[in-house]
Formats: sequence, C-alpha cells, structure tokens
Amino acid sequence: MANKTEIIAEPGKQELYIIREFEAPRELIFKAHTDPEIYVKWVGPRDLTMTIEKWDCRDDGSYHFTHERGGHKYAFFGVYHEVNSPDRIVGTFEFDGLPERGHVILGITQFEDLPDGRSKLVHQSVFRSVADRDGMIASGMERGVNEGYEKLDEILANSRSEATAN
Amino acid sequence: MANKTEIIAEPGKQELYIIREFEAPRELIFKAHTDPEIYVKWVGPRDLTMTIEKWDCRDDGSYHFTHERGGHKYAFFGVYHEVNSPDRIVGTFEFDGLPERGHVILGITQFEDLPDGRSKLVHQSVFRSVADRDGMIASGMERGVNEGYEKLDEILANSRSEATAN
Repeated sequence: MANKTEIIAEPGKQELYIIREFEAPRELIFKAHTDPEIYVKWVGPRDLTMTIEKWDCRDDGSYHFTHERGGHKYAFFGVYHEVNSPDRIVGTFEFDGLPERGHVILGITQFEDLPDGRSKLVHQSVFRSVADRDGMIASGMERGVNEGYEKLDEILANSRSEATAN
Repeated sequence: MANKTEIIAEPGKQELYIIREFEAPRELIFKAHTDPEIYVKWVGPRDLTMTIEKWDCRDDGSYHFTHERGGHKYAFFGVYHEVNSPDRIVGTFEFDGLPERGHVILGITQFEDLPDGRSKLVHQSVFRSVADRDGMIASGMERGVNEGYEKLDEILANSRSEATAN
C-alpha cells in the first residue's frame, strides 16, 4: 500500500504540519532534501519544471529555486538556520510572486527512523498569520506536496531496483 | 515623556509583538540594528556584556553573539532572510542554552516613519509553539527589551547632543 501524505492545519492556528512515511531510512530522505541533484527531481507538482539557481544547504546557507509551467515562473528562496544530518533541517521560505515581500514562513523538517528500514518525515510550517497559512493551503499546496513525495517514492524505488540489479 | 515599550502576547497564540517609538527617523533605528558597533552597545539588559562573534547583516547572512554576566555566557545565533534598509529585517533567532536545539524563532522587524522626525518599530516574533513563546516571556525577556531600547534612546540622545555641539 502506498504511503499517504497527511497535512494537518488546525483552524485558527498559524502553523501546519506535514507528516509522511517512506520506505527508506531517514539518511536517504535527508539526502533527498540536501542534495540538489536529487531535490530538483522531486519537489513540487508533476507539471512544473524545477530549476535551482542557488544551493548552499548548510548551517547559515541559503537557496533559490524556480518552478516553471508554460512560460510562467514561480520563484522561491530562503535561508538555512540549521542543517543537521540526518535529524533536522530548519529554514525560511518565501514565494517571490506575492504582491509584497515579507510573507515569510519558518519551516522545520524532522526525520525519524522507523522499524524495518522505514522512516517518517514531520514538517512544521510556521506562518506570520492564519491568513498567510490559509492562503498557502488555498494556493494548491496539497497537490504539490503529495505529488512531490510520490516522485520521491519513485526515485527511492528506482534506487532499490538498481541496487538489486547490481 | 520617555517612550515606553509595548509587548503584546495574546493568550494561546504562538507569536508576540513588540512596539516601540523613537525620537529619531527610522534610518537611524534601522542602522542601530545592522551596524555591529552600535548594536553591541544597546541590545539586552544593562547588567550583561555583549560580544559579537559573527556579524553578516545582509540578505542570506547570519550572526552569532554572546551575553555575559558574572562568568555565565548566553549565546544567540541565527540567519538573516531579508535586510531591506530602512524598511524591514527578517531573520531567525535561537538561544544556545536550551536543553535541546530546534526552538527557533522567526523575527520580523518593521521600521516606520512618524511625523516630526520620529519613528516606530514593530517587531513580530513567531514561535514553534505557545509554550516556546511563554517560555521566552518567562525568561525575563521584558526587562532585556525595555532596557535595551532605553540604552538605544541614550545613544540617540548623545548623537543629537554631539551633532548640536559640532
């Protein structure tokens, strides 16, 4: 049975949680978040093409990437507060396409091992307001998150196949 | 009449606001937050001595400073998401002395001009939980914030005296 993504957004709170299990140890899930060659292959919905403009995934580092669909570009950027392998990534996130700057999000992603070589990702996004959070959800975030993790599942499955073949 | 610091922490919310007016235009208040030679003179309570270990106050930059009192050291660090003169500073903040890492805070400081060469600072701290916020308040934050801005008032007053004398 495929793993499902759980998105928890309690009414009236300026935060949301994303919970997802994977058929791989947390070291591999962590690496899929920090290695740009893997990251670029899975983050976001299937019908967008991702380009990484800046990638410095370490304590005090920063990033900038663009999603593109039919000539429309959506840029995202932020800084890394903590990149602690294989436990936790803490950073900021902002979408460049809003009418004004400043709607920044604090993101904390924890990676936990589960039995049988599996793992669980728990991501918390903390927003400046409930309106910012609800706007993010209304923007179609859920599809992008779901499809992103499905792509990551496929990458992990392919790696396992290749490892078995070799 | 001296300017007073207003700290707003609504029950049950994972944020707080600090509002403070100053007898100086916002360019000077912004500079007092970005120039390490000024910053080191006013941030925090009066009975602590501040040392700046790292200072890179720009978009994608980071900082690390220490407060010291009677041999006890309190270290703070974070990254700058946005440093937009003289309008806004956005960054993360974490206290190194907690039992565990990860209790990071997102801070947004806005600087607004008021009539008659005065200005207003509006700071929002966004926490990972209500407990994190209430812990910060219980730690004696209010005295440090109040005394810090009082020291900044004194620095601004001294600058005005020197400007008048010259």
